[in-house]
Amino acid sequence: MPYFDAASSAPLHPVARQALQAALDEGWADPARLYREGRRARMLLDAARETAAAAVGCRPDELVFTSSGTRAVHAGIAGAMAGRRRVGGHLVVSAVEHSAVLHAAEGFAATEVPVARTGAVDPAAFGAALRDDTALACLQSANHEVGTEQPVAEVASVCRTAGVPLLVDAAQSLAWGPVAGDWSLLAASAHKWGGPAGVGLLAVRKGVRFSSQGPVDERESGRAPGFENIPAIVAAAASLRAVRDEAAAESARLRALVDRIRTRVPELVPDVEVVGDPVRRLPHLVTFSCLYVDGETVLHELDRAGFSVSSGSSCTSSTLTPSHVLRAMGVLSEGNVRVSLPLGTAEEEVDRFLEVLPGVVADVRRRLDAPASAVPSPAPGSLVVDSLGKRCPVPVIELAKVIGDVPVGGTVTVLSDDEAARLDIPAWCEMRDQEYVGEQPAERGTAYVVRRRG
Amino acid sequence: MPYFDAASSAPLHPVARQALQAALDEGWADPARLYREGRRARMLLDAARETAAAAVGCRPDELVFTSSGTRAVHAGIAGAMAGRRRVGGHLVVSAVEHSAVLHAAEGFAATEVPVARTGAVDPAAFGAALRDDTALACLQSANHEVGTEQPVAEVASVCRTAGVPLLVDAAQSLAWGPVAGDWSLLAASAHKWGGPAGVGLLAVRKGVRFSSQGPVDERESGRAPGFENIPAIVAAAASLRAVRDEAAAESARLRALVDRIRTRVPELVPDVEVVGDPVRRLPHLVTFSCLYVDGETVLHELDRAGFSVSSGSSCTSSTLTPSHVLRAMGVLSEGNVRVSLPLGTAEEEVDRFLEVLPGVVADVRRRLDAPASAVPSPAPGSLVVDSLGKRCPVPVIELAKVIGDVPVGGTVTVLSDDEAARLDIPAWCEMRDQEYVGEQPAERGTAYVVRRRG
Repeated sequence: MPYFDAASSAPLHPVARQALQAALDEGWADPARLYREGRRARMLLDAARETAAAAVGCRPDELVFTSSGTRAVHAGIAGAMAGRRRVGGHLVVSAVEHSAVLHAAEGFAATEVPVARTGAVDPAAFGAALRDDTALACLQSANHEVGTEQPVAEVASVCRTAGVPLLVDAAQSLAWGPVAGDWSLLAASAHKWGGPAGVGLLAVRKGVRFSSQGPVDERESGRAPGFENIPAIVAAAASLRAVRDEAAAESARLRALVDRIRTRVPELVPDVEVVGDPVRRLPHLVTFSCLYVDGETVLHELDRAGFSVSSGSSCTSSTLTPSHVLRAMGVLSEGNVRVSLPLGTAEEEVDRFLEVLPGVVADVRRRLDAPASAVPSPAPGSLVVDSLGKRCPVPVIELAKVIGDVPVGGTVTVLSDDEAARLDIPAWCEMRDQEYVGEQPAERGTAYVVRRRG
Repeated sequence: MPYFDAASSAPLHPVARQALQAALDEGWADPARLYREGRRARMLLDAARETAAAAVGCRPDELVFTSSGTRAVHAGIAGAMAGRRRVGGHLVVSAVEHSAVLHAAEGFAATEVPVARTGAVDPAAFGAALRDDTALACLQSANHEVGTEQPVAEVASVCRTAGVPLLVDAAQSLAWGPVAGDWSLLAASAHKWGGPAGVGLLAVRKGVRFSSQGPVDERESGRAPGFENIPAIVAAAASLRAVRDEAAAESARLRALVDRIRTRVPELVPDVEVVGDPVRRLPHLVTFSCLYVDGETVLHELDRAGFSVSSGSSCTSSTLTPSHVLRAMGVLSEGNVRVSLPLGTAEEEVDRFLEVLPGVVADVRRRLDAPASAVPSPAPGSLVVDSLGKRCPVPVIELAKVIGDVPVGGTVTVLSDDEAARLDIPAWCEMRDQEYVGEQPAERGTAYVVRRRG
């Protein structure tokens, strides 16, 4: 049963399991105690810190273990902002950061740097967002939803010149190699690379002003309160070293499998947009969106067919808003599927996925009475489509069905109160080469106006 | 090799180990995902929550899992204070709470309720500390250093009458049974009962105003950010149920062993004070202090003899201040030894400890040239002892050596710049039935004046 959602959480690496079991016997005591059980625990913790620091590319005394990647991000942002309080309270983040970064940024005056359609920031635009009162900048090493690598080294250089520390969220990339460039802080999460849950990393380079927030606690240099989870930390460090040993070979192998998906999906499934940078990307992750399909149903059908994937479509999350990443990129969010291959994914599993996917999408479209791929023949008039109360992907389906009913130059106005329409109607226009005129408030919901081009 | 420091961290319970290993296979995926691996993880998490809630005595939807007991305390205090922000910002805590509580309290206007020489608060005194602007009160179920049980049910009733929610830190007692009384919030830590590190519990009763602090995160009802550590949570819940099943029999057995230590230590070792309530106490924990001994050396010698214990003496901690618990109780802090027996401690191990201890203490005293147990014969004059620059237990040793050199009614003034002297000189006077006159600032350090009684 292929599990293709490694970017959410990777299955436990065999090395992590072995290390965890050994450390359960040796690492349960308080490492602050001086008796033998405490000294043993302390030695395990010190050794794990050296291993992890070597993989991160920092000094052991620059690295602390937190209880999750989220906690590493929260503590890193809070500590760095407080450390440079006197400079100011301004924070710069990319628009496609993980929600842990964006939620932490909510407490500050933050500027979001937009991204290109690939999902990448422009280093010059990032630099232009830095101000005299900017205390910190945050940029992911690679995006968690579309796999695009960010120009971290260039941005770090721009930040260094401006005297602003850069925090890199390396959660998605640390398995594949250290983060290049002159970053100041780095956060990561062990369960993303096959380590256990319950372990994050926070590196703070010497010389970076940092003031831990929250109640005082002496553990982990005062940067991560609570009793150290040594067995899990040992397992996290051991598995990070193990996946790094496999990284070169495995990244080449998975990159080829992802290339196959990137090439074959648009050939096999009509009306699909593969998103993210095709080259500067994570080796194991690919995301595409299918017109006229809702993410929840396609995920459910793929699950029934044995494939576990995730989606940035609005229909599958607990909110009704589509992924902020897809929105920032300006790409289609409906029928969105993210495939992220764990280490060791077999070629046959990918081929089987490519066999199953077209039927699943066609089936969902049939059930939703979606239009055929070609635009139907023209007819006179301008039209208003009332899609009020209908959810993604229905407004786009109804638009696609009637666009052929207006003459070239005529307009279709879609009334919708679904938040996803704001993103998906312009994205559909771009895919279908129709003109997106704009939106305006309506008596109920919003009116989206599309002019037929051809 | 007997490990007698269960109150710091208990060895992993066999049930925790089994549950953890099983859950590593089943519980590594994201429980927020809808595919089969996610659904399996969610089921494990839900089942663990029901088990833990039953042991705590709350509804499953009142309980969240945090990454440590410290985090549970921090989140509980911050959330409860923020939830009742409009009432005021005043917090009431006992003077002998765990440092996690006291450090969290530092952010607020806090009143510390004093304790009796047993370590227990008086419910009436606790009630008297509650004010109109008191947003929260905190009381441990039992003390982590001396084992004294607090009158939680009475204090909860007093708080309920005053309309103030009570947070109970149940870290030391939850293994032995649910916390009695009408508490509002409860925090605990799995590695204290033989569960794995990395899991704390925070219960917040329905109806308690609570506003989570820190960046938004949807995990664990928004009360504990970061990816859930499901294998550890499953192990924590399973082991809590297991230790509860053993609690009645094991607590009776360990209580008898602790009674043996409480009785025999003062018989075997001269100049010892056994502290804490002899009856209303945790079954497995006992603390005593030895005059004329420093905690670090006695711990080191006990470790060499194979016994792992801890100490609240100033000499063994990273700061130079003695335990705030011993200070609040007004008992001797020098030569302090805490013995906390893990489940399954053999009677022979305790007997062997009682064999070894007298020689260890005598040896340390001999090396420090401590006075014999009886006060030597008198001589005329009042004396000043210069103990400046000397650390615990030297000032008390020097005082004891010369008290016999002044006549009855004469005084010895000890000059000391050691923080422990402030606590230990009065405590010595009480043990030796000498009159402690008081302290006054000296040119260097502090002058402690003692009048000879007999």
